Amino acid sequence: MKVIRSISEMQSFALRRQMQGKSIALVPTMGALHEGHRSLVRRARKDNELVVVSIFVNPLQFGPREDLKKYPRTLARDEALLKEEQADVLFAPSAEDMFPAGFATFVDVPALSATLCGPFRPGHFRGVATVVAKLLQIVQPNRAYFGEKDYQQVRVIARMAEDLNIPVRLVACPTVRENDGLACSSRNRYLSRREREEAVKLYQALYLGRELVEQKIMTDSGKLGRRLMQVLKTIPRSRVDYVSVVDPVNLQAMKKIRRPALLAAALWIGQTRLIDNVMIP
Amino acid sequence: MKVIRSISEMQSFALRRQMQGKSIALVPTMGALHEGHRSLVRRARKDNELVVVSIFVNPLQFGPREDLKKYPRTLARDEALLKEEQADVLFAPSAEDMFPAGFATFVDVPALSATLCGPFRPGHFRGVATVVAKLLQIVQPNRAYFGEKDYQQVRVIARMAEDLNIPVRLVACPTVRENDGLACSSRNRYLSRREREEAVKLYQALYLGRELVEQKIMTDSGKLGRRLMQVLKTIPRSRVDYVSVVDPVNLQAMKKIRRPALLAAALWIGQTRLIDNVMIP
Repeated sequence: MKVIRSISEMQSFALRRQMQGKSIALVPTMGALHEGHRSLVRRARKDNELVVVSIFVNPLQFGPREDLKKYPRTLARDEALLKEEQADVLFAPSAEDMFPAGFATFVDVPALSATLCGPFRPGHFRGVATVVAKLLQIVQPNRAYFGEKDYQQVRVIARMAEDLNIPVRLVACPTVRENDGLACSSRNRYLSRREREEAVKLYQALYLGRELVEQKIMTDSGKLGRRLMQVLKTIPRSRVDYVSVVDPVNLQAMKKIRRPALLAAALWIGQTRLIDNVMIP
Repeated sequence: MKVIRSISEMQSFALRRQMQGKSIALVPTMGALHEGHRSLVRRARKDNELVVVSIFVNPLQFGPREDLKKYPRTLARDEALLKEEQADVLFAPSAEDMFPAGFATFVDVPALSATLCGPFRPGHFRGVATVVAKLLQIVQPNRAYFGEKDYQQVRVIARMAEDLNIPVRLVACPTVRENDGLACSSRNRYLSRREREEAVKLYQALYLGRELVEQKIMTDSGKLGRRLMQVLKTIPRSRVDYVSVVDPVNLQAMKKIRRPALLAAALWIGQTRLIDNVMIP
């Protein structure tokens, strides 16, 4: 596996491969790789001749009081995992090269950034859209792979790529879960043992919500939200940012639940913010 | 010359040519072509194997009270001119295809959009950056050609392309002027005969300003502005938006003039808004 740190080297490498007609995959990550990332790399490996995994902890998508500094950086382990999964290139640029002095351009999808996590993380999705737009130009992939755990992110990026006519196909892959159902996330490692045990209730609440809707026991999203809050509130030292039912395409809140719907939630357990979602098809 | 109206046809045509190693030029225009455009096409023709000229009157860069509806559309004449200049492709997409229902993504360079024309045309440069980002993805050019008459636009686009790592080289070409010095512009045709005669004073004022600075007669941009206003105010039915001296790279206003500097102005003559600039090297 080749490790590339320079943007221009990555881009010229990609452009050469493209000229040779090679299909290129990009799996953009912030590192601290887990089983979710592994599933993306496997899928990318299956469908493409060249698999590029980027590791970049993007400062632009962290708020001033968020966890940029303490975000887990485990490059040596990540590199070993990627070798195991037969990635071809690990692209790990520096923040100084990605956002040099004078950097001034932002890519924004305001309509999809105003719901769900948006109000709780101002500027987050603008940071995501901007860095992914850059990565797509640098790596020139035919396909890019994202996990559905970050559902809103997937929607923002899909909208951005379509609107800007970027010639890439986005592949959204199912959320990978730990044995008890908790969605894999780099932030899970922030959790204490006790918090980790309680964290499963996030998935349990969403699972319950899907059941209540599928069995037509609940059709009002407000009522459903209140019911699920009862579950989440039993987690010690927790604070719920939102429990929402939204249209899976435009992410607008639904009062009366029509299907398909996306049930999504974000909550804090101690100092750790977790998100998860389930589709109600 | 091939005329392409479909975005997907244009993009797959470009991607095929790119795979063959052909160098592609893009000359983005809003049509109503004049000698300024002609010089861009000639330059593009000299340096590239494939020359694509886009004609698209971009609704996103017009304000609600601006001249989108009356902007001159002269497609048959434009087509003839482009054949004469041996362009290979005229790309003329529809507004419905460029901005379909649900379009939601914006590319913005706020720091370079807040000076000069920015405050007088809110949203204009965001509209420009967004449409050019799209055109660069659709046409996949190695080089893109712009006229320095729209100096701020060139800076916004250069910043955007660099920041987003779009693999294109921007070529800024000198402003082409009519015999008396007025910068060529599609909007010149709005001018009545009398207005056209008076319009030359815009260039004369900038030319005078450059002289005053080069001969070190003036070093204070406020004083210089007031001096040039005296010239511009002699134009009947005119209203000056600004006369500014700015840093040519970051476009920030200079109080004391350091060189290089850009001297730029915008004014209305009757219902027509004209812009022009001169570099003071």
